[in-house]
Amino acid sequence: MARPLRIGLIGFGNIGSGVIQALRDNRDLLDARCPRPLELFRVADIDLERPRPVEVDRSLLTTDAEAVLRDPEIDVVVELVGGLEPARSFVEQALRAGKHVVTANKMVLAHHGAELLALAQEKRVRLLFEAAVGGGIPVIRVLTECLAANRITRIAGILNGTCNYILTQMTAAGMSFDKALADAQMHGYAEPDPTADIESIDAANKIAILASLAFGLDIRHDDVHREGIAELTLEDLKAAEADGYVVKQLAVAEIEEEEQVAVGVRPTLLWKDHPLATVGDVLNGIIIEGQPIGAIFLVGPGAGPQATASAVLSDVIALSAFENGQSLAPPFLTMPVARKPQKRAECACDGYWLRILSDGNDQTLGDVARILATHHVSVERISKEPWELQITPDAWQWKPVSAYNPCAIRVHTGEISERHIREAIREIDNARWRVPESVTLALPRHESTRVPNWLSET
Amino acid sequence: MARPLRIGLIGFGNIGSGVIQALRDNRDLLDARCPRPLELFRVADIDLERPRPVEVDRSLLTTDAEAVLRDPEIDVVVELVGGLEPARSFVEQALRAGKHVVTANKMVLAHHGAELLALAQEKRVRLLFEAAVGGGIPVIRVLTECLAANRITRIAGILNGTCNYILTQMTAAGMSFDKALADAQMHGYAEPDPTADIESIDAANKIAILASLAFGLDIRHDDVHREGIAELTLEDLKAAEADGYVVKQLAVAEIEEEEQVAVGVRPTLLWKDHPLATVGDVLNGIIIEGQPIGAIFLVGPGAGPQATASAVLSDVIALSAFENGQSLAPPFLTMPVARKPQKRAECACDGYWLRILSDGNDQTLGDVARILATHHVSVERISKEPWELQITPDAWQWKPVSAYNPCAIRVHTGEISERHIREAIREIDNARWRVPESVTLALPRHESTRVPNWLSET
Repeated sequence: MARPLRIGLIGFGNIGSGVIQALRDNRDLLDARCPRPLELFRVADIDLERPRPVEVDRSLLTTDAEAVLRDPEIDVVVELVGGLEPARSFVEQALRAGKHVVTANKMVLAHHGAELLALAQEKRVRLLFEAAVGGGIPVIRVLTECLAANRITRIAGILNGTCNYILTQMTAAGMSFDKALADAQMHGYAEPDPTADIESIDAANKIAILASLAFGLDIRHDDVHREGIAELTLEDLKAAEADGYVVKQLAVAEIEEEEQVAVGVRPTLLWKDHPLATVGDVLNGIIIEGQPIGAIFLVGPGAGPQATASAVLSDVIALSAFENGQSLAPPFLTMPVARKPQKRAECACDGYWLRILSDGNDQTLGDVARILATHHVSVERISKEPWELQITPDAWQWKPVSAYNPCAIRVHTGEISERHIREAIREIDNARWRVPESVTLALPRHESTRVPNWLSET
Repeated sequence: MARPLRIGLIGFGNIGSGVIQALRDNRDLLDARCPRPLELFRVADIDLERPRPVEVDRSLLTTDAEAVLRDPEIDVVVELVGGLEPARSFVEQALRAGKHVVTANKMVLAHHGAELLALAQEKRVRLLFEAAVGGGIPVIRVLTECLAANRITRIAGILNGTCNYILTQMTAAGMSFDKALADAQMHGYAEPDPTADIESIDAANKIAILASLAFGLDIRHDDVHREGIAELTLEDLKAAEADGYVVKQLAVAEIEEEEQVAVGVRPTLLWKDHPLATVGDVLNGIIIEGQPIGAIFLVGPGAGPQATASAVLSDVIALSAFENGQSLAPPFLTMPVARKPQKRAECACDGYWLRILSDGNDQTLGDVARILATHHVSVERISKEPWELQITPDAWQWKPVSAYNPCAIRVHTGEISERHIREAIREIDNARWRVPESVTLALPRHESTRVPNWLSET
């Protein structure tokens, strides 16, 4: 019998409990499948007293992460602490000690992944992170191994289950943003402080990791254009729906000629029959485009202890195929240090969809059209309709300020640069007929032409 | 610089050309990503004269497959001949000679995969076959590596692009089966002899491979319950659509307690919002369910030279990570020889949907209900509607035989065994009021409750 692969787990929370549970539930399978048997050898957490869904032999438990990081018997450190520090230091220490590391920590990877992967390579060990992006969807291995023959040109995905849940609840159940957020918190899908999710920080970490791997360029969290979803109202979503769209928090990474790269996360309008428009609730969905494959589309649970355990353990199993001291080839795709894109491009789209609330006087629509034209924004369609306060008061505080009936103006623009849109909106926001304190919404549209044309590839 | 990985390719057809094209187009990427550079060393085909989309240096070409199989310089044999023989012999010879083999040949694997994988293991080489199932979708690696920590309980998929194209054309463009088949042949999606596709032989090969790997049991082509799509009429599909369903050629593999396994391919009704119902044209789509992951859903191009090249080369790239003579761990999941399922179960479904054409006399509906009750088939819903010959004559040859207006009777049954349904249909087919020569259709339904309940897993 081969020497067991000894696992030191740091961070015994929900995810850690899920990993231990799966190790136990599927013990028979894992013994049959793994070239070296998996052995849970130490478990470290700062709090050993709080109740957990699984029990662990007390002799394995410690409050001292160093006891795991320094133990020469341990082959693999599974880091499930989360957050930037001390998680980053734990990963670095483990690698320096010549241990493989498996982590679910997107924040550490999106900020320090390139250096840590280089360190792993130097130490001839592996730093694996399947669980960092897409939860149970094996997008990291699909991208870096299954699609390694492809020149990846574009990745588009719904990478944050919390935001997807909130937007789905707003659209499907007619909840206001605040109600949907509270609902997500009640179900445990959102943290008490939801900032990282709704400000698109979490999704930005994830798309930075994917873009860096896919394009072989040094792309970090701060390189990602980021817009949150907190300003979206139920009315906005309903108006978009009436035009045939679904609003999603969409993460996109694209590369064009000469390493011109665009990476961003923002609320985006998708045609309702776009594959990603069908990804609801807390699911994640990812489209990867490249040559020769054309495109593939992956959907699955984006978070949760079970799905994450599947991803974490797939990494541990991969490591069980290596004997101690065996030399490891470098990974096929990695995050390079300091190989920045030639040029940072604006995130592309098929045009914008604007929604402007005005006092409804007869000149308003003409004024909007004139302002857009002045700023070189081509207009495909513009319409005006009466606007009534049908929504719960927590969504809107506005009181009418004129004798005219207020109205909502919707504009479909042609393809246009974001700068021109922003300048036009600045002028619109200063117009005397705009409803005070209303938000003028400008969301990018990804339309049917942006659906991966996989048919042409087959 | 590491010694190159030398590739001997056997079968220089469309797929072979796609592989060579991709090797060339992505040369820069592959050089950067592969630990050992990939070298196309020999190319064998029985016909070297016919025109091909890529040119190959004549010094590499040979008509003698043995020249590839015996060449000690060659590390990897890529078998793209297709069909059972001589492809199987080529694979066996290459493995016996200690060479890795990469193949796209589902037929060889569904009939002889277990023996060939055992031989590869004995010879300490790899037999890889990502391209054999799902075309560009990396379902083999997802199943055997990414999901290796999971107890797989069910796989459901659209695995044959040709049938999916035919059914999509019938539903979307209102074509008869024969017209849709001719259209598929014109586009190159169907062979001149379409038997393997429309009789579900191809999909049966693919689901046998997936089931064998997923359940660790010896499941071959002949173990798969198989029904073709050629009897489906446009009218049937339209009637199903009116009831909210889409008809797909669905491959399903399920395992229950005590290794009771059901594996089948048959036309199946899916709710139109089922994930697999959205997979149109020549795309493939696969849902994999297991614990702890819950479920994931993969969609992509199911065939074609480009997509297949992506899959074939991912296997070749994986082999480039191994140095010559380095000992290889066994694959995590493999096809076992002679470990048959304990019991072969009937393919499960949520009940059947029947469509019966009758002469429309007043007793007919009551007669159908009585016959079903006699055979212990519970009925959830039964309806009768006038039936008119609206369809092109190539679809129906029938002339009314009675003075009554003909009608179509549709039945939704409850969950019921296939045996009882078949017995009931035998009696219905003998009823004097049945339209002569009409086909009494009984299709299984997979309804909303069968959609993977990934939400409960996250």
